[in-house]
Amino acid sequence: MAEQKLYFECDYMKGAHPSILNRMVETNRMATIGYGVDEISESARAKIRKACGCENAMVQFLVGGTQTNAVVIDAFLRPWQGVIAAQTGHISVHEAGAIEAGGHKVLTLPSTRGKIFPEEVELYVKDFYQDANHEHMVMPGMVYLSQPTEYGTLYSREELVQFRRVCDKYHMALYIDGARLAYALACPENTVTLSDLAALCDAFYIGGTKCGALFGEAVVIPDPQRIPAFFTLVKQHGALLAKGRLLGIQFDTLFTDDLYMEIGKTAIEAAGRIQAALVRKGYRLWQESPTNQLFIIMENSRLEEFGRKVEYSFWEKYDDSHTVIRLVTDWGTTPEETEALISIL
Amino acid sequence: MAEQKLYFECDYMKGAHPSILNRMVETNRMATIGYGVDEISESARAKIRKACGCENAMVQFLVGGTQTNAVVIDAFLRPWQGVIAAQTGHISVHEAGAIEAGGHKVLTLPSTRGKIFPEEVELYVKDFYQDANHEHMVMPGMVYLSQPTEYGTLYSREELVQFRRVCDKYHMALYIDGARLAYALACPENTVTLSDLAALCDAFYIGGTKCGALFGEAVVIPDPQRIPAFFTLVKQHGALLAKGRLLGIQFDTLFTDDLYMEIGKTAIEAAGRIQAALVRKGYRLWQESPTNQLFIIMENSRLEEFGRKVEYSFWEKYDDSHTVIRLVTDWGTTPEETEALISIL
Amino acid sequence: MAEQKLYFECDYMKGAHPSILNRMVETNRMATIGYGVDEISESARAKIRKACGCENAMVQFLVGGTQTNAVVIDAFLRPWQGVIAAQTGHISVHEAGAIEAGGHKVLTLPSTRGKIFPEEVELYVKDFYQDANHEHMVMPGMVYLSQPTEYGTLYSREELVQFRRVCDKYHMALYIDGARLAYALACPENTVTLSDLAALCDAFYIGGTKCGALFGEAVVIPDPQRIPAFFTLVKQHGALLAKGRLLGIQFDTLFTDDLYMEIGKTAIEAAGRIQAALVRKGYRLWQESPTNQLFIIMENSRLEEFGRKVEYSFWEKYDDSHTVIRLVTDWGTTPEETEALISIL
Amino acid sequence: MAEQKLYFECDYMKGAHPSILNRMVETNRMATIGYGVDEISESARAKIRKACGCENAMVQFLVGGTQTNAVVIDAFLRPWQGVIAAQTGHISVHEAGAIEAGGHKVLTLPSTRGKIFPEEVELYVKDFYQDANHEHMVMPGMVYLSQPTEYGTLYSREELVQFRRVCDKYHMALYIDGARLAYALACPENTVTLSDLAALCDAFYIGGTKCGALFGEAVVIPDPQRIPAFFTLVKQHGALLAKGRLLGIQFDTLFTDDLYMEIGKTAIEAAGRIQAALVRKGYRLWQESPTNQLFIIMENSRLEEFGRKVEYSFWEKYDDSHTVIRLVTDWGTTPEETEALISIL
Repeated sequence: MAEQKLYFECDYMKGAHPSILNRMVETNRMATIGYGVDEISESARAKIRKACGCENAMVQFLVGGTQTNAVVIDAFLRPWQGVIAAQTGHISVHEAGAIEAGGHKVLTLPSTRGKIFPEEVELYVKDFYQDANHEHMVMPGMVYLSQPTEYGTLYSREELVQFRRVCDKYHMALYIDGARLAYALACPENTVTLSDLAALCDAFYIGGTKCGALFGEAVVIPDPQRIPAFFTLVKQHGALLAKGRLLGIQFDTLFTDDLYMEIGKTAIEAAGRIQAALVRKGYRLWQESPTNQLFIIMENSRLEEFGRKVEYSFWEKYDDSHTVIRLVTDWGTTPEETEALISIL
Repeated sequence: MAEQKLYFECDYMKGAHPSILNRMVETNRMATIGYGVDEISESARAKIRKACGCENAMVQFLVGGTQTNAVVIDAFLRPWQGVIAAQTGHISVHEAGAIEAGGHKVLTLPSTRGKIFPEEVELYVKDFYQDANHEHMVMPGMVYLSQPTEYGTLYSREELVQFRRVCDKYHMALYIDGARLAYALACPENTVTLSDLAALCDAFYIGGTKCGALFGEAVVIPDPQRIPAFFTLVKQHGALLAKGRLLGIQFDTLFTDDLYMEIGKTAIEAAGRIQAALVRKGYRLWQESPTNQLFIIMENSRLEEFGRKVEYSFWEKYDDSHTVIRLVTDWGTTPEETEALISIL
Repeated sequence: MAEQKLYFECDYMKGAHPSILNRMVETNRMATIGYGVDEISESARAKIRKACGCENAMVQFLVGGTQTNAVVIDAFLRPWQGVIAAQTGHISVHEAGAIEAGGHKVLTLPSTRGKIFPEEVELYVKDFYQDANHEHMVMPGMVYLSQPTEYGTLYSREELVQFRRVCDKYHMALYIDGARLAYALACPENTVTLSDLAALCDAFYIGGTKCGALFGEAVVIPDPQRIPAFFTLVKQHGALLAKGRLLGIQFDTLFTDDLYMEIGKTAIEAAGRIQAALVRKGYRLWQESPTNQLFIIMENSRLEEFGRKVEYSFWEKYDDSHTVIRLVTDWGTTPEETEALISIL
Repeated sequence: MAEQKLYFECDYMKGAHPSILNRMVETNRMATIGYGVDEISESARAKIRKACGCENAMVQFLVGGTQTNAVVIDAFLRPWQGVIAAQTGHISVHEAGAIEAGGHKVLTLPSTRGKIFPEEVELYVKDFYQDANHEHMVMPGMVYLSQPTEYGTLYSREELVQFRRVCDKYHMALYIDGARLAYALACPENTVTLSDLAALCDAFYIGGTKCGALFGEAVVIPDPQRIPAFFTLVKQHGALLAKGRLLGIQFDTLFTDDLYMEIGKTAIEAAGRIQAALVRKGYRLWQESPTNQLFIIMENSRLEEFGRKVEYSFWEKYDDSHTVIRLVTDWGTTPEETEALISIL
C-alpha cells in the first residue's frame, strides 16, 4: 500500500543519490581522524573552492539547515544586531526561534512570492538610522536571503549586486541560505552562479539535505579572516559531526564531475511537466515558480481523495472552499512518478 | 601507507556496523515523512522503550553528543540553575562552551578517575544552601554523569541509587551521558542496566556515534510530562534531522536482536588483551579502566616512532620525560589490529 | 534660556515627588542591609500587597522597565516559548532586543491605538495549534499588555477577564507592563484596579520611574510559588540594586496615604485641559487618549518654531506636509506650564 | 535599638555622600532629556575623561556592578570566547551566573588573596593554544581583574603592565572591575592611577555604589571605536537609566574638586586604626589587607555575642572552632563608630 502512494510533499523524503551511498559503503571500514579534517573532507573543500572560483574560502560542513543558519548568523552579528529577512523566510517562521535563542532578533520585511527587494531593504535601513530612537532599537547587521526562496522563486544576479551595494553602504553582512541551491542552479531562468555567490556574499551555504545528500550543508565564507574561530562556534552549537568524513564523502561526491550542477535538473524537468499539465487541466496556480516547488489552489472537497493518493504539503487556507497546496519534485523523482501524478491530477 | 597505520585514537574513526549500512542502502529509495516521525523511527522507539522497561518513555533521536547535552540540559534547567559535573566531564571541557552558550553555568567538582561521588555532591549542595549568599549564586539544578566516564570508569548501580536520593532531596534532575554506553553494557564489571537508567534518571542518552552508528544519540526521558515541548527545543537547537528516518534506521538496527548489548564486546575483549600485554611488557598504566579506553604512561623518547605506526590520543603531560597517552578500541577493532598493536608495544 | 523652554516630551524628565526626596534625605545616614530585604523595603511590600488585596504576593523592586520586562518574561517562559505582544508594544520595538537577548521571540500582532484584543489573541493561538508545522515554530507562552498602552489607551476590566480566559485555555501567562500605571489609575475612564490586576494577571509591575519616583518598578507576582528563585534571576540580570532600600523608600512613600492613586491626577487634568484647548483651536488629534499622552497632527512648517519653545516627541510622519507629535504631561506638570503651553498652541 | 548597632558588614549600607544628595535636591524640579545625554551627564563625562587623561574615552554610566560586568564582557567577547578570572572573582561566584547567561564561560584560575598573576595567565593561555583539542574548548578572550580585589588586595602598576603585555600577545582584552576603586586610590600603597588604568586597559569601571554614590558605575572605554554600539547594548541589558541625569549628578559631584580621590581616605584610615587595634589585642588576621576590608579569624563561641553588637560578614569556615569574618569600613565611617568597634573587639 505505502509503495503505491506518491510522495510529492518535500525534497527530503528519500535517502541519497546512489553514488553517495556507494562511496559511504566503500569507505566504511576506513579509519580517519574526526571532525572533518580528514583527507576526504579536504578534497571536498578543494572542489567546492574551485567550483566557487574562490581559492581562499573557508568551507565548513554542517549537518542541517536550521543549525547552519543559527551558526552563521551568530558568527557575523554582534550582540546588538539583528538580521533582516522576509516574513516568509525560513529563519522567521520555521526554525522554532533558533535565531532568537542565539540572542538575535529577526527583523522581518513583507515578502512578495518569498522575495524581498534591495530598495525595500535600503529604505528600511535608511529609516532606521533616521529614527531618533534608533539607538534603543535592534541594529540591522545582516541581510538573509534564500536562493531559491521558500516559494520557489529566484533572485537575479543584478538583484544580488544591488543587495551587495546596500549592505556595503550600511555595514551589513549578506548571507544566502542555499538549502535548495541545486534546484536554482539547474533552472534555465537562473542567472546566479556559485562564483557570483562567492563574489557577492559574506557567507552562503550549499544545501545537501534537500539536494541529494543524506544530510549536510556546506558553508562558504569567501574571506576566512572574517570569522577567526568558526570551527569552535560550530562545535559550541553542537553542529560539529564527530565522523566528519561522512559530510566530506557526500560533498566530495556532489562536486565530482559537476554532479551538483546536474542533480537538480531531474526535479526541474519534472516540475515543468507537472506545471504544464496543471495548466492544461485548468488548475489555478497560486503563483508560478521556476524551480521544484509548485503551488496549486485546490477545492477543499478534492483534498481528502487526492491526499489518499499523493502525499502533499498543506500550504495555507485560500478561501472558505479552497486551499493552497504545495507539490515538490526532487533529484530522485522518476518519470513514472511524474506521469502517475499527472494522471491523478 | 595510510592503510598500514593502526588507528586506536578514538571510537569514531570508522563508519558504521555493516548491518546499519545495509539497511540504509535497502531503504534508500523509500519515501518517508521527515523529522523522525516515520514508521522506522517509531519502531526504533518501541524497541528502545522495551529494552529500558519503560513503556511511556519519550525517545528522541539527535545527531551528536554535544548537541544532545546542550538540548537536555536546556530542557531541564530553569534560567537561574546550573549543572553539577566532574571537572573532567565532557560538558566542562570539550564542548566549546555549549552549556554556557545556553545560559547555564557548569558547576564543577574535582573528579577521581573521571568520577564524582554522591556524598561529594550532597556536601556541595548542602554547603550551597547554607551559604548566606547562595541567592546570589547559581543554584544547582541537575547532576550530570557520564557512563562510562571520559576516563573509562563506571558508576555502580548503588552509586546511581545514591545520586537519585541526593537529587530527590535537593530537587535536582539526574542526567547521564551515555556516549559510550554500549562499552559499559558489554563490560563484565558493569552493574547498571538500561532499565536501571530508566528507573533512576530523569534523562539519559544511548550513544550511537561511538558505538557502531554513523552518528546519532537516543535521548530517553522516562516521564514525558517533564518536558512538554522537547521536540520544538530540539528543532530550536538545530538538532532535528530532516531525514529523521536515518536515525530511526540506525537505532532500529542497533536494538534488533540485542545488537546494542553485544556491539561493545569486541572492544572490551580487545582492550582486555591489550591491557594484559601492557602489563606483561612492563608498561606503566596511568590508571586501570574496565572499558574500551586505556591510559599508558609512555617515555617521550618513544612517542615519535610509536606515533608513526599507531594513531593514538595525547592525554596529558605526566612529567618532564613522560606523557599519558590514550588508546581506544571499538566495535570494529579486528583481532589482526589488536595483535599488530601488541607486537608494536 | 533652557529654563524658559517647556518640557512635554516625556514623563521622566524631572526628578521625583518631593516626599520621596525628603525621605531619602532623612534616611541617608541610616545603615541597612542590602539588596532590598531591609525593613523599609519590607514595609513597602506590605503596603503594596494590601493595595492589591493579595496578601501572599511576591513583590520585588527593580530599577527600570526594560529590565523588568526582560526578567519577568525570562522567569515565566520556557526556552521554546515566545511572548505575544502588540507590534507597537515596548518590548517589540524600543528595548533594543532585550527579550530576544534572553532567547525569546516576540510574537507580534497588529495593534489598534496601541491595543490588541482577546479575540485576536485567541484566533492567533488557535491557528498556531492548528498549523501542521507548529512544532517547528515558537510556542506562544505569554501575553504581554501595557496598561495604559504606549498610545495612552486603556484596557477595560472586561477585556482583561477575556484575556485571562484565553490564557487559561491555552496555558499562557498574562503579564501587564504598568510603566505608566498611575496615569491609568487616575483616569476617570479606567475600570481596572490594582486588585483586578492581582486577580487576573500572573505578573504585573507598578511603574515608578514615569510616575513620580526617581526610578524603580515594583513587580507583583500574586502566586509566589510560580517562580521559586525570582530573586536570583533578578541578580543574574544585573537588576538587583545593592542599596535596595532606595527602592523601598520610594515605593513605601508612593503607597503611603494612597499617594500612588493620587499622583497621576495632576497629569490627567493637565492633559484634559490641553486636549480641550487643542480642539478649541482647531488642531487635528491623531487619536484621542484618555491618559497623559496627547498625539497631534501638526504642519511640518510649524514644527521648527514650536520646537524652539516646547520640547516634544516626534512620533511618526503623517503625510508629506504633516507630522504626528506627542505631548506628555506628568505628576509634576504645573498649571503655569499647562497655560504656557496652551498659549503657544 | 537598631541605631546602636554598629554596621561594618559592607560598604553599601548607607545612602550617599551629602554633597550628592544636596545636588539631587537642588536639581529635582529641573527637566532634562533622558538616558544620560543631558548636560550634567556630559559634564560628568568631561571631568572623568580629564581625570583619566584620556580625552577621547567613551564614558557610560550604569546602575550596578553585576550589570556593568555583564554588559562590558558581552561587548568585548565574541561568542566562542570566555573570560579569565580569579576563582574568587565577583563574576565567578556572586553574580548568579550573569556572565554565563550572556553565553560566556568564566575561565577560573586559583587566586592568592584575591589576585591572579600575569605569568599564571600567560601559562594558562600558552597551554590552551598548545592543547591539541583547543578548538573544542572556550577560547580565552579577556582577562578580568578587580582593583582592589574582593579580598582587599591591590594590583601594582607593574603587574598591570605585565597583564597588558600578555593580553597583547594573545589578543585578549584587559578589563578591570573598580567597584571599590576609590579605596584603592586612597591607599598609600597604591601605585595605579586613573591614567594608568586608561592607558593599560581596554575597559574599566569607576565604582560609585560602594564609594559614596547612591548607586552607579562609570564605564571607561579608552578607545571608543572598539565597541561601536555600546549604548544600545546597555539598553538591551536593561541597564540604561531613563532619568540618566541621576547618574550624571552623582559622578559630576564625585569628580568635582577631586572628591573621588579623597572619598576613600576616611575608610582607609578607619581600617588602619581597626587593624592596629586587632593586632594589639592579639587577634589573628586571616590576611592583611591594605584597603577597607579586614579579615579576622574569630572563635565560633564569640560570634553570637559579637553579632549582636556588630553587623559583620560571614566569610568562610576556618576550622571546626573558628570562622573567618569580614569587617568593612566606608566613606561614611565615623571616628565614633570606629572607636565603638575597637572597644567591643
